[in-house]
Amino acid sequence: AEIVVLPGDGIGPEVTAAAVEVLRAVGYRYGHTFSFDTQLIGGAAIDATGEALPAATLAAAKRADAILLGAVGGPKWSDPKAPVRPEQGLLAIRKALGLYANLRPVTPHPAALGASPIKPHLLTGVDLVVVRELTGGIYFGDKTRDGDSASDLCRYSVTEIERVVRRAAALARSRRGRLTSVDKANVLETSRLWRETATRIVAEEFPDIQLEHQLVDSMAMHLLSRPREYDVIVTENMFGDILTDEASMLAGSLGLLPSASLGDTDGSGRIMGLYEPIHGSAPDIAGRGVANPYATILSAALLLRHSLGLADEAECVEKAVAAALDAGVFTADIAGSGGGVGSRQATDAVI
Amino acid sequence: AEIVVLPGDGIGPEVTAAAVEVLRAVGYRYGHTFSFDTQLIGGAAIDATGEALPAATLAAAKRADAILLGAVGGPKWSDPKAPVRPEQGLLAIRKALGLYANLRPVTPHPAALGASPIKPHLLTGVDLVVVRELTGGIYFGDKTRDGDSASDLCRYSVTEIERVVRRAAALARSRRGRLTSVDKANVLETSRLWRETATRIVAEEFPDIQLEHQLVDSMAMHLLSRPREYDVIVTENMFGDILTDEASMLAGSLGLLPSASLGDTDGSGRIMGLYEPIHGSAPDIAGRGVANPYATILSAALLLRHSLGLADEAECVEKAVAAALDAGVFTADIAGSGGGVGSRQATDAVI
Ligand SMILES: CC(C)[C@H](C(=O)O)[C@@H](O)C(=O)O
Ligand SMILES: CC(C)[C@H](C(=O)O)[C@@H](O)C(=O)O
Repeated sequence: AEIVVLPGDGIGPEVTAAAVEVLRAVGYRYGHTFSFDTQLIGGAAIDATGEALPAATLAAAKRADAILLGAVGGPKWSDPKAPVRPEQGLLAIRKALGLYANLRPVTPHPAALGASPIKPHLLTGVDLVVVRELTGGIYFGDKTRDGDSASDLCRYSVTEIERVVRRAAALARSRRGRLTSVDKANVLETSRLWRETATRIVAEEFPDIQLEHQLVDSMAMHLLSRPREYDVIVTENMFGDILTDEASMLAGSLGLLPSASLGDTDGSGRIMGLYEPIHGSAPDIAGRGVANPYATILSAALLLRHSLGLADEAECVEKAVAAALDAGVFTADIAGSGGGVGSRQATDAVI
Repeated sequence: AEIVVLPGDGIGPEVTAAAVEVLRAVGYRYGHTFSFDTQLIGGAAIDATGEALPAATLAAAKRADAILLGAVGGPKWSDPKAPVRPEQGLLAIRKALGLYANLRPVTPHPAALGASPIKPHLLTGVDLVVVRELTGGIYFGDKTRDGDSASDLCRYSVTEIERVVRRAAALARSRRGRLTSVDKANVLETSRLWRETATRIVAEEFPDIQLEHQLVDSMAMHLLSRPREYDVIVTENMFGDILTDEASMLAGSLGLLPSASLGDTDGSGRIMGLYEPIHGSAPDIAGRGVANPYATILSAALLLRHSLGLADEAECVEKAVAAALDAGVFTADIAGSGGGVGSRQATDAVI
């Protein structure tokens, strides 16, 4: 299998290197040949080519079986008036590859509960997945700036809502059968369309699934006060961005959370997917060898499962990370108060 | 002073009645005459007049010295296809009175920490105010629906951003001098305008204030992992809606959180203000006498302070609520596991 690696900026190169090592170890153990093609994206791409998503990167990504990404962005490129920003590379590749469903599983590991701001008794048994719509909404609508005002348009079509709700409902069916759709239907027209569409799709195609609607403001509370009650949560792009970062606090550290951004299955049954940790490029700790590689390694596990169809191999990686955490191999973000091992030791523990 | 009371729906009538009793007690003790004019809004107004904000209500509100509101909405009126919705009454009165700055203080009371999902050691010393822009952004932009797609426009002008940032910066100056401005400037054009404008206003008019920018997704995490670090947080309408409900979890219960929605000072130095609890109409417990009245009573304290200029009286009410909590007078939302007193006892404890 051919995997395109997009290290990006900040700690991106370190954490993707760790995940590639783990994938090589998986290949060795299970007898698979993975080839890795490293390409530019984000700030690194801007520095080298002037573009956040060079054509060569996109072409390689389109040919590949799967894409593993680190993180993009950093103070160097964050002048709001800069003509190109690193984040545009990420948004552009999501859009160009049609990766409309961003799966963000949150399963707090017992060993990391100490690092969560949430009381531990609320976290036992939490096992949820947020499915965030990733190629529509206010992220991709028209933007204007004229003199003293600015605007962003949020638009959704029925088709865009249907496909992500279907993906989420199918996932719920394979899990505990509960789907929570999040919107702001008491204020937004796009949310009213979202709610109607989710209701219809579930009624027509997933009558066995239990569907509940939540307003985004209530969801921001209930995610904290009763996280155990959720199974699959589906929502639009901007709400998903906020709620998944909030949900990450259930797991103790952003450094433990993987994500899979999936498109439709193509003619050959292959699912196009980009896999990346939820955390950012953390420029403050870049290059010091202390970044937590677990989220990217767990993203590689999702890559094995969803894009390569290697479920056993995926589970093997997930178990190895859990074992490393069980054994107390914590990077600084989890260990707290100045302790913790470096990326090297954490990666070795998994391998 | 003339106070317009807008009970609204669900538990709205119960909690506003409790706050009116407290205001009467304050009037008696300090020798003020408060008159109360009760008017319709929300679902109750739709049932009676067909409109969520009847002209008579708006006219009374415009004449009044201050407005005390309960909550609006409920399943009875929540069909997304209904021609009028209760929430429109609330949005319309905010807009019509120019109440652009919504102050939501969060100060966890020690007695209520047990009810918070957050670990108690993170909550000691938390004392923050979110200033939410309330009359602009995607809430009030053009909405369209054509066949199979829908849109909502988010728009901000420099003037709209300036005035709410000024209000927040002035508040920060009267507190610990720290202002955190929240946006999504790596994606949204309105956020880039927001960030530039906030930076300029603080540099030019509040050089003594320490300004920090946060992306909304990071803020959703940091609010939980290091809430003590925040003093005043200022943000746009939609982000403020989500973040304030999230922040409410720091306080243990939505039932403890007041809010003030303020406009500009008028010619006579009077500030137009609408005061309401952050919680909703809770139709499931309406009419049972178990609603927590503290948030509305604390909103009445904000009314005394901001619109009537009665700072001592405001403090007296706040101390009375704190004393009731100290004495363990908890309604069910705080007491948990089926315990707790009713609204009547809680109100009496404050009085
Ligand atoms: C970097 C940014 C554009 C991105 C987003 O908002 O989608 C990030 O926050 C994420 O969640 O993947
Ligand atoms: C009822 C609703 C329109 C309202 C809002 O979103 O502003 C409420 O959630 C609030 O926060 O006051």
